[in-house]
Amino acid sequence: MSGWSGERVLVTGGASFIGSHLVEDLVAEGADVRVADDLSSGEPENLAAVDDEIEIVEGNLKRMSFAETATENIDTVFHLAADHGGRGYISNYPANCATNMALDNVVYEAAAQNGVERITFASSACTYPTDIQQEKQRLSEDMVSFDERGGAYADEVYGWAKLMGERSLRAYHEQYDIDASMVRIFTAYGPRENETHAIVALMAKAYAEQDPYQIWGDGEQTRNFTYVKDITRALRLASENITDATPVNAGIRDYITINEVADAIFDRLDWHPDEINHMTDKPVGVRHRAADTTRAEELLGWEPQYSLEEGIEATLDWYVENRNKEYVQENLETLLHER
Amino acid sequence: MSGWSGERVLVTGGASFIGSHLVEDLVAEGADVRVADDLSSGEPENLAAVDDEIEIVEGNLKRMSFAETATENIDTVFHLAADHGGRGYISNYPANCATNMALDNVVYEAAAQNGVERITFASSACTYPTDIQQEKQRLSEDMVSFDERGGAYADEVYGWAKLMGERSLRAYHEQYDIDASMVRIFTAYGPRENETHAIVALMAKAYAEQDPYQIWGDGEQTRNFTYVKDITRALRLASENITDATPVNAGIRDYITINEVADAIFDRLDWHPDEINHMTDKPVGVRHRAADTTRAEELLGWEPQYSLEEGIEATLDWYVENRNKEYVQENLETLLHER
Repeated sequence: MSGWSGERVLVTGGASFIGSHLVEDLVAEGADVRVADDLSSGEPENLAAVDDEIEIVEGNLKRMSFAETATENIDTVFHLAADHGGRGYISNYPANCATNMALDNVVYEAAAQNGVERITFASSACTYPTDIQQEKQRLSEDMVSFDERGGAYADEVYGWAKLMGERSLRAYHEQYDIDASMVRIFTAYGPRENETHAIVALMAKAYAEQDPYQIWGDGEQTRNFTYVKDITRALRLASENITDATPVNAGIRDYITINEVADAIFDRLDWHPDEINHMTDKPVGVRHRAADTTRAEELLGWEPQYSLEEGIEATLDWYVENRNKEYVQENLETLLHER
Repeated sequence: MSGWSGERVLVTGGASFIGSHLVEDLVAEGADVRVADDLSSGEPENLAAVDDEIEIVEGNLKRMSFAETATENIDTVFHLAADHGGRGYISNYPANCATNMALDNVVYEAAAQNGVERITFASSACTYPTDIQQEKQRLSEDMVSFDERGGAYADEVYGWAKLMGERSLRAYHEQYDIDASMVRIFTAYGPRENETHAIVALMAKAYAEQDPYQIWGDGEQTRNFTYVKDITRALRLASENITDATPVNAGIRDYITINEVADAIFDRLDWHPDEINHMTDKPVGVRHRAADTTRAEELLGWEPQYSLEEGIEATLDWYVENRNKEYVQENLETLLHER
């Protein structure tokens, strides 16, 4: 029998892409799950498979009154809610990204006041210094530190806010002895992700048969695309195994170029563009990013279980099944740029 | 006629030590002032001289609903509200200090939504890297930067929160074009400050005739104690003259040891302890801290107008007039350690 049976769990942002997968995992483990979401990027249908087994409360967690309601009678919090988007979004909306500092700290304060016993924070690879991501060097958790000058150097306001989300949570662990863990999520992808993020954007453009097919940058920038079910398993394992605010990576070790992902999508759709237009004036973020997984293996016994091929297949099948082709063709630009 | 005449101004934390002095200045300039304060460290009597000329709203600015009310029909915000205390407090209550990230970002968001035109943020010398404050080297604003690795290295969670308060406000300037300024306040002192801060703590112990007289550390650590009316003038001038989120120091250039301050207090009270006990196990923060005032002179035409002697005299006179000696003697430990 799972240790989650009967556990009263709050998942913030639980109607969103990653959140909804985590909720499904926790329900399967027997947890008593409440979702708090403002439905800004989340959608109720993401929870269709479990919505008669969970409680859903809709509201803005930057509002203390709602955060207090959401954390009432809760043992464990998974804090995933965040203002977020792809590279274009975080470059152009720094104030929106800054609001995450309100969100995280309001949630922590309400949780502490309500006697929540443990909190797991969905952090990000954007907490890592950007200058070491121009060469191929896997990111290990100790490359971020508040104990030495230069140890904190995050990726834009979005990354700084995530880093402060970690530091604040550690402060709650120090001051209130709340069990705390934080998972640095690397480039997640999978069903329910929207078109503002790289893999689904590439899928949308291929599905719409965009030709010339547009790729931001030269396409040789790499990310370690990590399937969402591997991410949610890491979140659950972190909550189970880490209490002292030690951060841990959830991301694969492989460097995958955008061009490789595009090719895999073309193959799976059995469609190839005549021409590819590499848009080198678009923001692409760091050059290379992959995770050192040593700590995740040691502390969580975590290794990724999904190959890129399996993940792309599952995501693309979901995308094609849930999106009308003509609709995507007619609304492609909007889908790629709206939040 | 002052440019402040008829200006609708919100001062957050306006019932507090620094805030109440700023409110008096702004009322004298003709501004239409609203104070929002939760009275956690502020006190209504701090505003006794102006309370029939201003509006006071009591509430917690971490609550969005209250922040929305407070920023309604306001042109200019001075954001001074913060969870704060002396060195012992910020070392022992990191989670309380982290709540400032909620506070600042909730206030900014509410202000932006309500169409506030300019915001001045009360930042802190705690935003500066601590490692350069072991030697005597005046702190200039460009020693903090987000553009290079190591440029951001603040002093404990309190300092990181202040630094993020600056970064977030810059994001609001970038995204919403709100006029923004931020003043890095160095060790302020003056009437209405409480006993958890160094100078007033030293005054309380002398007034209570504590003997052996206790000084934290060897007393040779330095600060650039800056009189509160010089600080509030810098805040007003920053709001008038800076729109692009350039930070500016408000602090004197002089390095003043704690022992020198104690001696000045003893002289003014005409009382000297038989013995001084230097408590070297207490947290004392950085070794040396003073401000480079070049930018304040250039951008604000600001120079300090109060000498240390004048400031200590004014503060001590206020202290003696407003505190009962027997009460201070009987409650000294509580006064020094409560917030």
